[in-house]
Amino acid sequence: MNLQPPYYAVIFTANRSENVKGYQELSEKLFNIAQTQSGFLGKESAGEDFEITVSYWKDLESISAWKANPDHIVAQTLASRAWYKNYKVRIAKVEREY
Amino acid sequence: MNLQPPYYAVIFTANRSENVKGYQELSEKLFNIAQTQSGFLGKESAGEDFEITVSYWKDLESISAWKANPDHIVAQTLASRAWYKNYKVRIAKVEREY
Repeated sequence: MNLQPPYYAVIFTANRSENVKGYQELSEKLFNIAQTQSGFLGKESAGEDFEITVSYWKDLESISAWKANPDHIVAQTLASRAWYKNYKVRIAKVEREY
Repeated sequence: MNLQPPYYAVIFTANRSENVKGYQELSEKLFNIAQTQSGFLGKESAGEDFEITVSYWKDLESISAWKANPDHIVAQTLASRAWYKNYKVRIAKVEREY
């Protein structure tokens, strides 16, 4: 994925719990919704038990709008209740890429 | 890993090739050397065929010093010749985490 800095990265790291019922479906649904969000540039994901997902955004405003999206809020709540033992979100401004 | 923003993240994404001979050994050696570098705050890694590794650094100077480290240069060369089909490095300033 080639993007032109500056833009933003949301770095999501999480330890998944054993209970992943419904995870794949909602994960795909969320990605489809994210793609319709203004300012969404792309997403990369790796890992299973320990997961890193990085999504890319035009600016902080588009990240805030996505964070406030009702479908996303539902997913965040389910995720923190059932799918993840713990997770962390980092908002970072990409200054360079090569 | 709990860190206090602002600090820097180096987001490394790569598609591994089938040839991973020597990968694990050098990867571990590199991590041990990185830990001795000034300004190194930590590292997280996920995935196999598609890999995301995020390393955390105090500032741009510590990232530059690491990039110029001889052992790291050797590893970068081997990695781009044999272990990875393609890879991308993003330098990003972490502004917030929660």
